[in-house]
Amino acid sequence: MTSPVHGGNLTWAAALAGCSPHEILDFSASINPLGPPDSAIAAIQAHLGVLNAYPDPDYRDLRAALGQFHNLSPEWILPGNGAAELLSWAARSLSQQAATYLWVPAFGDYRRSLQAFGAKTIECPLPLTRTAGSSTLPDLTQLHLGLRLADCGLLINNPHNPTGRLWRREAILPYLEQMALVVVDEAFMDFLPPAADQSLIDWVSQYPNLVVVRSLTKFYSVPGLRLGYAIAHPDRLRQWSQWRDPWPVNVLAEKCAIALVQDRAFQQRTWAWLAQARSQLYEGLQQLPGLFPYEGAANFLLVESAYSTRQLSQALLLNSRVLIRDCLSFPQLGDRYFRVAVRTIADHHRLLAGLATAIDIYDR
Amino acid sequence: MTSPVHGGNLTWAAALAGCSPHEILDFSASINPLGPPDSAIAAIQAHLGVLNAYPDPDYRDLRAALGQFHNLSPEWILPGNGAAELLSWAARSLSQQAATYLWVPAFGDYRRSLQAFGAKTIECPLPLTRTAGSSTLPDLTQLHLGLRLADCGLLINNPHNPTGRLWRREAILPYLEQMALVVVDEAFMDFLPPAADQSLIDWVSQYPNLVVVRSLTKFYSVPGLRLGYAIAHPDRLRQWSQWRDPWPVNVLAEKCAIALVQDRAFQQRTWAWLAQARSQLYEGLQQLPGLFPYEGAANFLLVESAYSTRQLSQALLLNSRVLIRDCLSFPQLGDRYFRVAVRTIADHHRLLAGLATAIDIYDR
Repeated sequence: MTSPVHGGNLTWAAALAGCSPHEILDFSASINPLGPPDSAIAAIQAHLGVLNAYPDPDYRDLRAALGQFHNLSPEWILPGNGAAELLSWAARSLSQQAATYLWVPAFGDYRRSLQAFGAKTIECPLPLTRTAGSSTLPDLTQLHLGLRLADCGLLINNPHNPTGRLWRREAILPYLEQMALVVVDEAFMDFLPPAADQSLIDWVSQYPNLVVVRSLTKFYSVPGLRLGYAIAHPDRLRQWSQWRDPWPVNVLAEKCAIALVQDRAFQQRTWAWLAQARSQLYEGLQQLPGLFPYEGAANFLLVESAYSTRQLSQALLLNSRVLIRDCLSFPQLGDRYFRVAVRTIADHHRLLAGLATAIDIYDR
Repeated sequence: MTSPVHGGNLTWAAALAGCSPHEILDFSASINPLGPPDSAIAAIQAHLGVLNAYPDPDYRDLRAALGQFHNLSPEWILPGNGAAELLSWAARSLSQQAATYLWVPAFGDYRRSLQAFGAKTIECPLPLTRTAGSSTLPDLTQLHLGLRLADCGLLINNPHNPTGRLWRREAILPYLEQMALVVVDEAFMDFLPPAADQSLIDWVSQYPNLVVVRSLTKFYSVPGLRLGYAIAHPDRLRQWSQWRDPWPVNVLAEKCAIALVQDRAFQQRTWAWLAQARSQLYEGLQQLPGLFPYEGAANFLLVESAYSTRQLSQALLLNSRVLIRDCLSFPQLGDRYFRVAVRTIADHHRLLAGLATAIDIYDR
């Protein structure tokens, strides 16, 4: 059975492990284990009576709530059916450039969406370093591909999945100054507490060539609902609205999103949990022989492995019903890397014990 | 304030009427007033605990349920975020043909989606007749446009919105035999009881150039949830899956859809209500001076009017808080037509009384 190209495919994992999806402990999808917050469920329950009405095609209430959250005028915000839907339209805008530079390794759906619209893509390998200190970005002018940067687009991810690397926003500025279109997927940026935030949202009004894509599903633990939004110049967002149907966001997701961005208590609780739980997981992984975790700024850790992660992940799934994200779908990483979500201390114990056993079998 | 291009925009109507959206009696969106069925709400409530998991990207359970409902193998079915999402991908397939013939008047989003992908569109006016008897379809070979039909696509709607006209499936056969791609939007076909059903679903296995698009939102009264599916050759559906992100259908919509297609009692109740309520509404409208309803097969009626429907609909909204669908966004119809949904007998009384008053003011 080939492994899926995205994390969180519990249907697939449960079939392989011969159990129900509920019995799988999922470290493969990077979802906040503290959620969904009660405010999410309450918002859905309060609006079960409005399913018989179409969503507002202008999503005024949702855009107002997101605008208030980011201190931004609502016309700069376009809600979408998950960040993934908006990345498809970003890819369509990128396909109109002479070429699109793509950092690799990269989230697999970037490639799918760029191909879907026939974008010419140039892959730029990121330096893979385990410590966060030396986080330089590729100098595109050195690539000498016969293309003017001013005609090209760039698709990046900050913090970066799957390495967990965070770039300071100033590191991205040279691209913004030089390139036709820069799309920054900030799906994991909300895991950074305000003091550490490196979002480019504040810059959209100065850079009409900037698009920021955000997700609500990971931080608030509602990937089943599909909730994301793009922040960009209103003209570009109007064009995207014409490319898609008028009601892409479901009413329950809309009402839920409005409640979520106002849930300050859940946000504080998540930031407090993450700092502690991520350190504990990092140390636990570091103590296992042959495993080398990367320092990461988000709610997951990339781990280099002395063992085949294909074998490691299969053993974990079958023996411990723990699902990790192998990196076979990232050609730059392959069979010697895996990614795990940060979860609770108790969950980490089950993962670490499972890994220890799997390594033990492997070493025998 | 310009009127919206789609029905069901209660946010807009409430702002105009100076009331809350709940106070508007909505005849503008063609939604079954008997729903949503209890089974829909129960399915959602039973799955509020799975929001923290991604939807199955293969939507196996949903495709199995739809396959069972239509007696079709699941690989011929692609669920979507409302029929409107799937019509966007249908439009992209149509844009690859030399041209697309489009019956007009037509649902406004057809034009938006065809334009979004740069499709060359040829509009074919349908004969407008109030009685259902003479339902001939245009003979495209007579159009002499210098295009071979074998290179062209066709986008039609059966039953037809906004006229309510139903064509026998044999009437569509000549197009299927001659053209490269035929997309049939059957968003209202489920309102036909099995004995009167004219769906082309049974023909997809014989015609790889046929795409049927279905909606669950109108019959089951869940437009807020967004639920539709396409039925076509598996190769085409695989291509569409590559054009869009992996999780377009929200988990709650998925679980709800599985429950809905199994709710035979609700289906029976709807068919029994519709036959009776539609006749009653038709007769009520016919008795009002200057109003001429069309015979319709679906859950709405098109009405020709001796009065400006711009004025009529404004008066209705302000005086009675009743929202009807003017036809200003259908260039072939304009200010002398409106569309109303079939609702309950009590709702019809409020509509008919409101119309009588509005006509009275108009005549003064």
